[in-house]
Amino acid sequence: MPTLSPIEYADASPQVRSVYDDIKKTRNVPDVNNFWKFLARDPATLKRTWESVKEVMAPGAIDPLTTEMIYLAVSVTNGCGYCIASHTAAARKAGMTEAMAGELMAVVGMANETNRLANGYRVPIDAAFDT
Amino acid sequence: MPTLSPIEYADASPQVRSVYDDIKKTRNVPDVNNFWKFLARDPATLKRTWESVKEVMAPGAIDPLTTEMIYLAVSVTNGCGYCIASHTAAARKAGMTEAMAGELMAVVGMANETNRLANGYRVPIDAAFDT
Amino acid sequence: MPTLSPIEYADASPQVRSVYDDIKKTRNVPDVNNFWKFLARDPATLKRTWESVKEVMAPGAIDPLTTEMIYLAVSVTNGCGYCIASHTAAARKAGMTEAMAGELMAVVGMANETNRLANGYRVPIDAAFDT
Amino acid sequence: MPTLSPIEYADASPQVRSVYDDIKKTRNVPDVNNFWKFLARDPATLKRTWESVKEVMAPGAIDPLTTEMIYLAVSVTNGCGYCIASHTAAARKAGMTEAMAGELMAVVGMANETNRLANGYRVPIDAAFDT
Amino acid sequence: MPTLSPIEYADASPQVRSVYDDIKKTRNVPDVNNFWKFLARDPATLKRTWESVKEVMAPGAIDPLTTEMIYLAVSVTNGCGYCIASHTAAARKAGMTEAMAGELMAVVGMANETNRLANGYRVPIDAAFDT
Amino acid sequence: MPTLSPIEYADASPQVRSVYDDIKKTRNVPDVNNFWKFLARDPATLKRTWESVKEVMAPGAIDPLTTEMIYLAVSVTNGCGYCIASHTAAARKAGMTEAMAGELMAVVGMANETNRLANGYRVPIDAAFDT
Repeated sequence: MPTLSPIEYADASPQVRSVYDDIKKTRNVPDVNNFWKFLARDPATLKRTWESVKEVMAPGAIDPLTTEMIYLAVSVTNGCGYCIASHTAAARKAGMTEAMAGELMAVVGMANETNRLANGYRVPIDAAFDT
Repeated sequence: MPTLSPIEYADASPQVRSVYDDIKKTRNVPDVNNFWKFLARDPATLKRTWESVKEVMAPGAIDPLTTEMIYLAVSVTNGCGYCIASHTAAARKAGMTEAMAGELMAVVGMANETNRLANGYRVPIDAAFDT
Repeated sequence: MPTLSPIEYADASPQVRSVYDDIKKTRNVPDVNNFWKFLARDPATLKRTWESVKEVMAPGAIDPLTTEMIYLAVSVTNGCGYCIASHTAAARKAGMTEAMAGELMAVVGMANETNRLANGYRVPIDAAFDT
Repeated sequence: MPTLSPIEYADASPQVRSVYDDIKKTRNVPDVNNFWKFLARDPATLKRTWESVKEVMAPGAIDPLTTEMIYLAVSVTNGCGYCIASHTAAARKAGMTEAMAGELMAVVGMANETNRLANGYRVPIDAAFDT
Repeated sequence: MPTLSPIEYADASPQVRSVYDDIKKTRNVPDVNNFWKFLARDPATLKRTWESVKEVMAPGAIDPLTTEMIYLAVSVTNGCGYCIASHTAAARKAGMTEAMAGELMAVVGMANETNRLANGYRVPIDAAFDT
Repeated sequence: MPTLSPIEYADASPQVRSVYDDIKKTRNVPDVNNFWKFLARDPATLKRTWESVKEVMAPGAIDPLTTEMIYLAVSVTNGCGYCIASHTAAARKAGMTEAMAGELMAVVGMANETNRLANGYRVPIDAAFDT
């Protein structure tokens, strides 16, 4: 069943190659990650997702390293193994040190804990937060 | 039923007051948030949670604003209404501008989307991420 | 729009009344909770869900109080407001003291934290756990 | 440790065999999936779960293909690897084409994204949705 | 604090109005939902999200009603109150009957249950699903 | 890349060894699990997490077996593979029989199902639960 196999550049349609080329150029990498090679089975989603990711991850009011760390924090919370591996690599490339990685995990763990304490105690929102 | 009502400073035991005092001093605020007032029903958890939060949120390799944004990103992913409200306020106090808030939400949304695309396509982890 | 309104006993069909009667008799309560009154819009799901809940929550190898606390722990983790409220009430009725409620929340919070630390550090399963 | 090993037909009790027989007959398959073989460790849950699944997945107001796609959408959102694999297979058997699989993933991804945007912006429910 | 207040058409910038106009025209509605009015605080995310939603929800290999039901199934699983309300309304507009709504909830509930049984029993993926 | 490799006792710093020693003594085990060996990359988080776990899991108003089963219920709900494996082992050591394990999974599955039915039907909290 071909659906769950990746599409390599050599086998890609011109439409898919065009997205791969833009990923490689934007990120300055020799090849695209498995994520894109699997998504290539659905060229419309490949193109839309890449363009959205490119826009969202571009430097803006938040710097690229912080953006990557936020991405990683969400992926750890959701338990997405692939995303944890790929965004740990991306965050390191963007400058995340081992000390920062450790603190990131500590914050993510703590937030997941206090989120449940707030749920469990059914804490009402302070009036001050809404003014 | 008293369990789900907050404990105000005036009604608190010396043990709980001591935690409240440390929160107020550390954060330089006149009163503690509802979260702590509800947690005070279980003084051991109040004390342990505050000491953990104080340690985890202290300045370190990651700056306080980024730490707050990571906390907020987790809370948005988990859909914890109280935590979203309180940590939006905390992140703003730490310097999050409206532009940064918008970008944060965009990154959190995108990560939640691609986490599911990676799940759905059952993408295997690239060998490069494990070296 | 009638779909999201509850069905009271007086307005219920014989099929729905029969489920309500069994709930009231089994739990020794004068009326059923909102959960069942809303589910009654779909009588087949009402009947199947009640019969499954009755079977799963019946005394067995695990005692009724522990069963209720496990239910509550899941509901807190998922952030289901209705379920937290209803199963807190049920657990108390089954004997959960305030001290137990506090410890339950502490364990749920801690498990949610360490679940993410295990995710984030990508910890492999110890061989000893599989033998 | 036998708990986490599957129970094959040849080794199954009459009670378990009876469920296996009904699964095989209902689905017209030569053997049951691992899911049922592991659940067989708890014959009461095996029987109740199968009867519930059989009732819920039966043709009704929603056709079988749509039912399988809804099941798959939930499994992808929860990141259940086994369920994604088994319900992708089931949805294909029910008629899901590769184009439909791609669109399904796109919708699931988008819903997970907008769910978090709605959380993060704390959007209040429009009055029109409640009338 | 203006951040969490909606932007009405009369107060919107030309860029935001242009998105609102396209939503109203595409959906043939007199006004946009709160979701878009809150997202308008971040015009880039408003525009990108609308264009993605428009593309993903357009008729394709999956019909519009099924697409809306998949969206709703994800929102129910994530417990997003706003999304459940808005996509229940959208699914009804697309043709979801009360019987279909009931079956949808039943399937979503069952999938969430079996996802956890598969997790808890640590069921390995059948070889047949990978061929 | 050393970050994701475990730290064995022989290679550990005095600070880490001190935590390992306390884990081994408290649990009466010859070596610590992988979880702690990976966490040891961040000694502050190792120490804080162990001390919190030790406090939370200590006998109190809830007995140790019930505490372990609650932990396991959360881990199954979150789909944390490592945590399911390690806390299944811990719960068995604390006395969880095979019959109890089966009932635990049944309750966790059912709670995950009814949590979504409560979400989907948007059931309002009964007044009786708040008094």
